Amino acid sequence: MAKEKKLVEQITSMDVDFAQWYTDVVKKAELIDYSSVKGCMIIKPAGYAIWENIQKELDRRFKETGVENVYMPMFIPESLLEKEKDHVEGFAPEVAWVTHGGLQPLQERLCVRPTSETLFCDFYKNLIQSYRDLPKNYNQWCSVVRWEKETRPFLRSREFLWQEGHTIHATAEEAEARTLQMLNVYADFLEDELAIPVVKGQKTEKEKFAGAEATYTIEALMHDGKALQSGTSHNFGDGFAKAFDITYTDKNNQLVHPFQTSWGMTTRLIGAIIMVHGDDSGLKLPPHIAPVQAMIIPIRQQAEGVLEKANEVLAALGAKGVRARLDDSDKSPGWKFSEQEMRGIPVRIELGPKDIEAGQCVVVRRDTREKIVMALDEVAEKLPELLETIQKDMFETAKAHRDAHITDVTDYETFKDAVEHKPGFIRGMWCGDQACEDKIKEETTATSRCMPFVQERISDVCVCCGKPAKKLVFWGKAY
Amino acid sequence: MAKEKKLVEQITSMDVDFAQWYTDVVKKAELIDYSSVKGCMIIKPAGYAIWENIQKELDRRFKETGVENVYMPMFIPESLLEKEKDHVEGFAPEVAWVTHGGLQPLQERLCVRPTSETLFCDFYKNLIQSYRDLPKNYNQWCSVVRWEKETRPFLRSREFLWQEGHTIHATAEEAEARTLQMLNVYADFLEDELAIPVVKGQKTEKEKFAGAEATYTIEALMHDGKALQSGTSHNFGDGFAKAFDITYTDKNNQLVHPFQTSWGMTTRLIGAIIMVHGDDSGLKLPPHIAPVQAMIIPIRQQAEGVLEKANEVLAALGAKGVRARLDDSDKSPGWKFSEQEMRGIPVRIELGPKDIEAGQCVVVRRDTREKIVMALDEVAEKLPELLETIQKDMFETAKAHRDAHITDVTDYETFKDAVEHKPGFIRGMWCGDQACEDKIKEETTATSRCMPFVQERISDVCVCCGKPAKKLVFWGKAY
Repeated sequence: MAKEKKLVEQITSMDVDFAQWYTDVVKKAELIDYSSVKGCMIIKPAGYAIWENIQKELDRRFKETGVENVYMPMFIPESLLEKEKDHVEGFAPEVAWVTHGGLQPLQERLCVRPTSETLFCDFYKNLIQSYRDLPKNYNQWCSVVRWEKETRPFLRSREFLWQEGHTIHATAEEAEARTLQMLNVYADFLEDELAIPVVKGQKTEKEKFAGAEATYTIEALMHDGKALQSGTSHNFGDGFAKAFDITYTDKNNQLVHPFQTSWGMTTRLIGAIIMVHGDDSGLKLPPHIAPVQAMIIPIRQQAEGVLEKANEVLAALGAKGVRARLDDSDKSPGWKFSEQEMRGIPVRIELGPKDIEAGQCVVVRRDTREKIVMALDEVAEKLPELLETIQKDMFETAKAHRDAHITDVTDYETFKDAVEHKPGFIRGMWCGDQACEDKIKEETTATSRCMPFVQERISDVCVCCGKPAKKLVFWGKAY
Repeated sequence: MAKEKKLVEQITSMDVDFAQWYTDVVKKAELIDYSSVKGCMIIKPAGYAIWENIQKELDRRFKETGVENVYMPMFIPESLLEKEKDHVEGFAPEVAWVTHGGLQPLQERLCVRPTSETLFCDFYKNLIQSYRDLPKNYNQWCSVVRWEKETRPFLRSREFLWQEGHTIHATAEEAEARTLQMLNVYADFLEDELAIPVVKGQKTEKEKFAGAEATYTIEALMHDGKALQSGTSHNFGDGFAKAFDITYTDKNNQLVHPFQTSWGMTTRLIGAIIMVHGDDSGLKLPPHIAPVQAMIIPIRQQAEGVLEKANEVLAALGAKGVRARLDDSDKSPGWKFSEQEMRGIPVRIELGPKDIEAGQCVVVRRDTREKIVMALDEVAEKLPELLETIQKDMFETAKAHRDAHITDVTDYETFKDAVEHKPGFIRGMWCGDQACEDKIKEETTATSRCMPFVQERISDVCVCCGKPAKKLVFWGKAY
C-alpha cells in the first residue's frame, strides 16, 4: 500500500503556496518528470497527449489560413546569428553552443536554435527571386533551447516545444495583416479550445521581440493574479530582409526588399491551462483539449454484469465521438475518483449494481462537482452536449475571475497599492516614455503587459509621471 | 521566362547516373533545400507534407498497439551516455557536443541525442518500482544528430527526423514479442502505405545495434539494386537495465531487472519512396502517402466555363475524400503537366472546353501514363477506386523489380561476379563466422543485410569459406 499512500497525500492548497500547488499538480497529474539534464523536463504521456491535441487543432487552424509546414536545421552558425544586430543581442547570452562534432572541434561554433528567424532569412534569400514567389507562409513544429537560469515546468525551461511561423510578403501592409491574422488565430484558439479569455494588444518598445518593428501579444490572467504572455506575433517590416540582403524583383521590374513576420506558441500553454482552471484537487482540463474526456469508474466491479454494462457505455460513448476510458484496475473506487480529479478528466461516470438495476448512472462534472443522474441508454447521447456545457462554463468562470481582477488606477500611489494588494491586471494610462516603464518595473516589479487594441481613456495623465497620457496599458506581475 | 527555362532542364537519366538522378529529383520535386549548416537539410513543404502523412499513419498504427507518446530532453550528459559500454562505443565518435550554455562553460558537456536509450533508461530507473508499473510502451517523435562525414538528402544527414520507441517489460518473452510486433508494424506500413516490398530478418552480430541482444530489420531494394535498411527493432534483453541499475519488485517480491526494446524509422523513408518508385520524369508518390493525390489542370482556362467546371470537379473530389488541387496559375498546361509529373502526384485531370462539351475529362495516371476518359459526373465516384488500383499496381511493379533482382549463389566466385554484375540482393548461405562477413565486405563492398525470417537451405556450405552453412543471408551493397 506504499504507493497508494504516496498518491493521496494532499496537494498543497493554492491559497497557502501557489508555486508549490503548481508543482504538486504538475507532478500528481503525471504531466512531467524531472530529468538528469538540469532545466530540461520529460513530458510524460498525460502531458504530451495535451500537447498533441493543441498541435492538432492549432495546425488545422494554421492550414486553413494557407500555412505550410517545413523543417529547418536545429543549428545556427554563429556568423548567421550575428547578422541582425538587435536579434543577436537579444539571444546570444542565452544559447547553447556546439563546439565539437564527433572527435573534431568545429571550425565555426553552432548554437542550438533559440528561434529560427536567421535560418528562415538565409533560406528565403535563395528561394525568393520574383514577386511570383511571394508570399511564403511557412511554419515549423520543433524544440528550441534557451539557457535560462531559473526554470519551472512548462513555464520556463531550457528546452521547450513550440511552433514558429515565418512568413514573407511583397508589401508592408500584407505583412501587418498576416501578423494580426495569426494573433487572432491564437486568441480564438485560447478562448474556444482552452477556455482561457485573453487580452489582445501590442507590446511596448521595451517589451517587443529582439529585431521586430512591432510585437503583438495575447495576455491571460492566472488564478493567482499574475499575467502569462501566451502567444506573440511579430511584424519585422523589412529589417531582417535588409540585414540578410533578401530582395525580389517586383512587378515594375525593380529590385526591392520583402517584408516578414514571425509568430509562436509553446508548451507554456499547458502551464496556462493548469493555472487558469486548476483547483486544490488538481488539474481541470477543458473538454475540447482533454485527451480523456470521460472516465467510467465501476462500483463493485466484481459484481455480475457491472463490467459488462460499463463496457457497453464505453462503446456507446466512443461511437458518439467521446474520448472515454474505463478504469477497471483493482484500485478502490474512491482512489479512482481522486485520480480522475487530479488528472483533470472533465467527467466521471459512476456505475454500480444498484445503478444498473435502476437503469441509470451518475455523471460527475469535474469543474463544478455537480452530480447528474442519467438513464444508461441516454448517457452517450447526452454527453457531447454536457461536455460543450462544461467547456462554455469553464470559459465563463475564467472570464469572471479575470474581470474581477482588473483594477483601474489613475495615480502612482494607487498603482503601487494595487500591485501589492490587488493581484490581477492593472489598467493605467501611460505617457509613452520608457523611463516610466523602467521606474514602474524597478519599484513595483509590475511590467507593461500590452497596449490593448481596445483603447479607453480612463485618465488624461500618465499613471507614473503625470505628463499627458498617450496609451492605455495593461500592467501586471507576470510569469 | 528565365525561371521556366530552369525548370524544364532534363532530370539526369537514372541509367546514366543514378546518384545525380536522385539529387535532381529531390531538388526538382522541391522536397529539400541545402542549408548553411553543412550536412543539414531544409525540408520544404512538399517534402514535409510526405513526412506528416507518414507520421499520421505510423502514429495511428503505434497507438493501436498501446503505444503512448512522450518527449525527452534533446541533451544527454556525457556520464549518462557512457553507462552502457557497447552503446557509447557505437555513438560517441559521431555526436555533437554542447560545451557552453549562454556565456558560461558547462561543468559537464552534453551531447545532442544521437538516439535516446540512455535517457529512457534514466527515466525508467525512477518510474518503474513494481511489476504493476510494467510494461511501458513509450515513443517519441523528434530530431536526432549524428555527425556523419558524407551526407545525402534523406539518406544520411547530420540531423534527421525520426520516431524512437522505447519499451520496458517484466519478461524476456514479452520484450521479444514487442520487438517483433513493431517490426511487423513497420513492414506492413511500408507494404500497405508506401507500396514498398520488404524482406524481414535479423541482423548478424556484426551489423546489430550498439548495445542490443538482437536487431531485426526490414530491407528494401532500390531501383539501382542497392539495399536500404528501412526500419529496425532492437531487443536489449536486460543489458541496459543492468548497466543503468533498473530494477522492479516482481510478484514474488523479488528485486529483478526488466527487459527493454527500441525501434525507429526516419525521414530516410522519403529516400526509399524516391528510389523505389521514381523515374526519369521525377517522383512517383503512392496515393496513400501523397499529400496531393489528384491535380486538376485546365486547358484553355480563360475560355468560358472551364474554371467553373474545374472547381466543380475539385469540390466533388474533396467530398469523396480525395486530396485534390486545381492548378489555375498562369503557366502553360504543358508546364503544369511536367510539374505534376516531377512532383509525383498520382493522377492529373485534364479538362478543356472540348472535354466539357463532351461531358468528359481525361485522367492520366502518373505511374503508367495511361490516359482514361471519364464522364465528368463520374470522376469523383471513380477516382478513389483508381487511386487504390494505382497503389496496388505500384506495389506489384516494385515487387516484380525486386524479385527480378535477387540472385542465388552457392560459391564465392559467383558471389563476387554477382556483386559486380547483377545489382540486387544476393542470397547465399553463411557459416556464422564474422571473418567471412568481414572478408566479403572488404573484397566486394557487399554487406550482410539480414538473415531472413523465412529460411531456406540453398546449399550446405558457406558461400565464402565452404565450411558447413548455418544461415541463409541476404547480401548486397547498401545505402
